Amino acid sequence: MPNKISQGFTVWFTGLSGSGKTTASHLLAKRLRDAGACLEVLDGDVIRTRLSKGLGFSKEDREENIRRIGFVCELLSRNGVIAIVAAISPYRAMRDQVRTNIQNFVEIYMDCPIEVLVGRDVKGLYKQARAGEIPHFSGISDPYEAPLHPEVTIHSAEETEEEGVEKIWTTLHTLGLISCDRVQSQNIV
Amino acid sequence: MPNKISQGFTVWFTGLSGSGKTTASHLLAKRLRDAGACLEVLDGDVIRTRLSKGLGFSKEDREENIRRIGFVCELLSRNGVIAIVAAISPYRAMRDQVRTNIQNFVEIYMDCPIEVLVGRDVKGLYKQARAGEIPHFSGISDPYEAPLHPEVTIHSAEETEEEGVEKIWTTLHTLGLISCDRVQSQNIV
Repeated sequence: MPNKISQGFTVWFTGLSGSGKTTASHLLAKRLRDAGACLEVLDGDVIRTRLSKGLGFSKEDREENIRRIGFVCELLSRNGVIAIVAAISPYRAMRDQVRTNIQNFVEIYMDCPIEVLVGRDVKGLYKQARAGEIPHFSGISDPYEAPLHPEVTIHSAEETEEEGVEKIWTTLHTLGLISCDRVQSQNIV
Repeated sequence: MPNKISQGFTVWFTGLSGSGKTTASHLLAKRLRDAGACLEVLDGDVIRTRLSKGLGFSKEDREENIRRIGFVCELLSRNGVIAIVAAISPYRAMRDQVRTNIQNFVEIYMDCPIEVLVGRDVKGLYKQARAGEIPHFSGISDPYEAPLHPEVTIHSAEETEEEGVEKIWTTLHTLGLISCDRVQSQNIV
């Protein structure tokens, strides 16, 4: 039966739409999987379908959405699984509340100037948001509160995705959450 | 880092209110924990607070609640964690749908005649339900569809809790999900 005690943790990407959260989260997931880790990527769209159907984008609904993601991260992390979240999660207090419930919580701030995001606008969402066609759009018609003390800040307008993930990797090492030369799981027979 | 591949599974207790789901689930959890397993008990009340706030007891809401619990079980099970659920989960089709998403799904039917439950009525809920004070009460004013082929049926009016858990334990062995003489988790260094 499953019987290891190993160290789970949660890597939580926060940042505006288009700041590179999803790409970085999948790159990190690949690197961790290649190293043999058990993990789940909690993707915003999947969560909205499977955990938060019916919730919208008001402050209250966003907070409830984050609470639920946080609950799932808590369950995974405390059982030795790595949870990786990519969610705008614009409210600082809510992220901090999630943090208090998770022993190893690593917050990654994808920092990108709004003018860069508006300039890129890969999905055309910023144009729509500025035209008032998408209400509650973080950074345009809704607040985004950057973390004050994230474990890692990635300046995604200046750093490549690989550089960003390398910074995260180093931090996970420094925090003692990953290690290349030893296995942190223990079996109890 | 967490890096075991081990066999997770989901034990899903279904049955009417008062049929002994919660007691049996905790007894099973204790026995599994004592054997060194990593597990989560997904308790109905906790789930209603942390995952399904706002959902009621209509068929649609109950189904959505079960879908969400199923999603969490899926995430835990496929990462080697045991998920134990105690939820009335009255609709057969919905339980069967959850089953299709989880590789090792063990359904436990807590079978207890309604007249026994009404006679016991530990929480006084049946009295209230029969007086029409609790709408959508499974078995009284709402359907309960018993499983057709559960992995285990516990006749909770006749069997002790210990006997019931012993039957589950035997079934988990038979299914190859637990084993006393070998560790099923593998480390990949």
